[in-house]
Amino acid sequence: MTAAQWVALIIGLSAVVRDGAATYEYQTKTIDVPIDHFTYTGEATFKLRYLINDTYADKDATADPANSPILFYAGNEGDIELFAQNTGFMWELAPKLKATLLFVEHRFYGHSLPFGNASYESPKHLGYLTSEQALADFALVLRTLNPPNGTTRARPVIAFGGSYGGMLAAWIRIKYPHLVAGAIAASAPIRQFAGVTECGIFNQILTSVFQVAYNAECATNIRRSWTTLQNYSASADGLRVLNEKFKFCTNLTKATDVTETLFDYLTDVYGNLAMINYPYPSSFLAPVPAYPVREFCGRLNQTYSGAELLDQLHSALTIYYNYDGKAPCLNINSSYDGTGISDQGWDFQACTEMVMPICADGVHDMFPPQPWNMQTYADKCFKKYGVHPRPANALLNYGGEFLDATITNIVFSNGLLDPWSGGGVLRSSNENVKIVLIPEGAHHLDLRASNPADPASVTRARALHVQNIQKWLAEYRKQRKVY
Amino acid sequence: MTAAQWVALIIGLSAVVRDGAATYEYQTKTIDVPIDHFTYTGEATFKLRYLINDTYADKDATADPANSPILFYAGNEGDIELFAQNTGFMWELAPKLKATLLFVEHRFYGHSLPFGNASYESPKHLGYLTSEQALADFALVLRTLNPPNGTTRARPVIAFGGSYGGMLAAWIRIKYPHLVAGAIAASAPIRQFAGVTECGIFNQILTSVFQVAYNAECATNIRRSWTTLQNYSASADGLRVLNEKFKFCTNLTKATDVTETLFDYLTDVYGNLAMINYPYPSSFLAPVPAYPVREFCGRLNQTYSGAELLDQLHSALTIYYNYDGKAPCLNINSSYDGTGISDQGWDFQACTEMVMPICADGVHDMFPPQPWNMQTYADKCFKKYGVHPRPANALLNYGGEFLDATITNIVFSNGLLDPWSGGGVLRSSNENVKIVLIPEGAHHLDLRASNPADPASVTRARALHVQNIQKWLAEYRKQRKVY
Repeated sequence: MTAAQWVALIIGLSAVVRDGAATYEYQTKTIDVPIDHFTYTGEATFKLRYLINDTYADKDATADPANSPILFYAGNEGDIELFAQNTGFMWELAPKLKATLLFVEHRFYGHSLPFGNASYESPKHLGYLTSEQALADFALVLRTLNPPNGTTRARPVIAFGGSYGGMLAAWIRIKYPHLVAGAIAASAPIRQFAGVTECGIFNQILTSVFQVAYNAECATNIRRSWTTLQNYSASADGLRVLNEKFKFCTNLTKATDVTETLFDYLTDVYGNLAMINYPYPSSFLAPVPAYPVREFCGRLNQTYSGAELLDQLHSALTIYYNYDGKAPCLNINSSYDGTGISDQGWDFQACTEMVMPICADGVHDMFPPQPWNMQTYADKCFKKYGVHPRPANALLNYGGEFLDATITNIVFSNGLLDPWSGGGVLRSSNENVKIVLIPEGAHHLDLRASNPADPASVTRARALHVQNIQKWLAEYRKQRKVY
Repeated sequence: MTAAQWVALIIGLSAVVRDGAATYEYQTKTIDVPIDHFTYTGEATFKLRYLINDTYADKDATADPANSPILFYAGNEGDIELFAQNTGFMWELAPKLKATLLFVEHRFYGHSLPFGNASYESPKHLGYLTSEQALADFALVLRTLNPPNGTTRARPVIAFGGSYGGMLAAWIRIKYPHLVAGAIAASAPIRQFAGVTECGIFNQILTSVFQVAYNAECATNIRRSWTTLQNYSASADGLRVLNEKFKFCTNLTKATDVTETLFDYLTDVYGNLAMINYPYPSSFLAPVPAYPVREFCGRLNQTYSGAELLDQLHSALTIYYNYDGKAPCLNINSSYDGTGISDQGWDFQACTEMVMPICADGVHDMFPPQPWNMQTYADKCFKKYGVHPRPANALLNYGGEFLDATITNIVFSNGLLDPWSGGGVLRSSNENVKIVLIPEGAHHLDLRASNPADPASVTRARALHVQNIQKWLAEYRKQRKVY
């Protein structure tokens, strides 16, 4: 491709946005996959869901399959439709590349429940919820929908994913390179594991996002709020005030409802707000305005304390939980309410192989001090699920702490306003692993549909993605008959 | 390394042989590994056995770990001691490379029985006997014995294996490249799967070995023998004659004892004889003289028929089953009697994921015509084990039909007198995958201790192995801090 063609392609992408033409239409299908890919103790299968759009692919049977790629989204911890509808970049790319769009759901999420409604009942069922099994599901789908035909190889597959989906996109390229020609791994914290990334990084980045979004008072108020909340939690009167001010769906009745449930909820919300701190209104994790952290911090922009701090905090929280005015009350049991993301499933994964140490010290971050202790964490997990974490498993299985020469054709992109970027791959001395940094970007902003409000850095990131994909496709055409 | 140093190293290797100095001494240890690496349905572990010799490794704590590799044998379908004692090449190499020797047993073989004596009782136990679980065992052993220490990476690991062990050596490099710097995959039929290699190749190569070993009468007699045996099997008198002539440990009493049990045994023996057709006496699968196929065929070197053919056939068979004169009778239930190789375990693997189609037509080979029928095969397996094969699994998981650019640092070596070479990797247009052909070689002859009777081609093969290993080690030193 000439430079002029590149420019045309990139302008073309933007055009789609300006037209507002990207619509998300797909067929919903299922495929039977083994519940256990790696043993032969039984033969049970379940229906894995995938979404497919074939309208842009080259229908000419004599066409070279290498010229018509498959853009494959590696589903993460939620309903696959959520990700299909929040990955506009793939939709904008498909017509340009004559590509098929394929979004495959991750087992145990959305409609892909191996044991139906009993899937979450016990570790005997939940135990099959692992990244290795999910990758094997994906591999089986790819091989089934995209078989080589004897004389020619299969169509090239480009994997995409954001967050945990980005980890899976990188890992499927690493573990099944014969099925995937390259991967765009957006905001994929494949290094957020013990021994590789400091546990404090996440909350330090998160805090800095809240410090710069509006003014420094925001993070200071949040830091102060924990003690205030704790003080109120210590008496029946205090609890009554909290219940009045925050309008919880279920009244808080004891101190730990505040110091555990509410603290956890707030911590999650701050993380989520940073992740979805997009430059335009969005509804990925919740309906929020453009730059929701700025909006949030706009309500904590002076030095508040006591009851006033609580009022302002609650007002700020509505940006997240009730921006559309439809929430009758504040449900602090989940910060993913109604999104299709299952924090229940992720909790199990985080208790088995996706153990990502996160800690706080209250000095370099705005959170209550909480050191990381693997033993305590493991004990809690065992109590909950009857199995101990294997915290070394991800690095053992997938590597990634070093970018050995065998790791190729992966783009790791990270928004630097995303707290998960701390566990991402931010530099590479391997020329076949590309790093794309998006200084103004939140969580996998680059995978979203382009938007007039996009900062220049994300437009550039998408252009780089296209460039890398084209390079991988050219390589694929060249080596497709390498014996 | 200079060319002169190469020559010195290779001569050094030969010197060990001439001295007869290679002795196989090791410590026997075990490590607890999960019975199931890929689910969290339970926490059961078992003791996996490994053999280790640390005497040649650099003991200087300040020495660069990159200069002291680990030579790791990926255990196959038998007692790991058998493979340690028949892989002299590694033992000859260790002192030269200041290397640790590590032989890890494959689960369900030798002493590494996940469920003790009940391991083979039912598919509920046997189902955990898969190559993926075995590779995960190996990975865990490597990571445990060879951890990176924070500032430096782990010691470089070179994987070795012959036959199925060679497949595992190649696959561990493909699937866990962050743990293994390179692999010598000797006689590894990673393409002996449906859709990639014609099912007839194995028996065609096997037949040609028997045709050229002494004279063409040998294969002709064998081809004729099937009908003769079948004729004798059809009557009580005939069976009596067979029992007298062959001195079976258990008398044959019905036709299928001949056309099934004996035919299977003979087929296996011919295959085994070709595999161990080494240029000196050996005792890998059975105690046999040098060039056992030639010895065998020397007793079938004229046109025989009827009773005389049976006498000559039995006499020839003694080369395999009673060369040391210690067998009181002919046990046709297993051609691996007393070797430590478990054909019971392999039978299960062959019925699940290691489905290697082999057929005969009686024209291009010396066997009774037997077409390959996946359905019939699958039905038989289901009847036996209650699970159906997943014959596409090996290629799905490991790839290998194409040598994509991500597959690097593997040597595929094949003896062209080895029937398994037909399913091996015999050419490569990938410059990082090296092919070593040994025209006079049988089954992984190159992994055996060097011997004055070795043909020049195997001496050259070992020199190439050393050259490739040195290249991988140099690369490892160079890229060990690639982030």
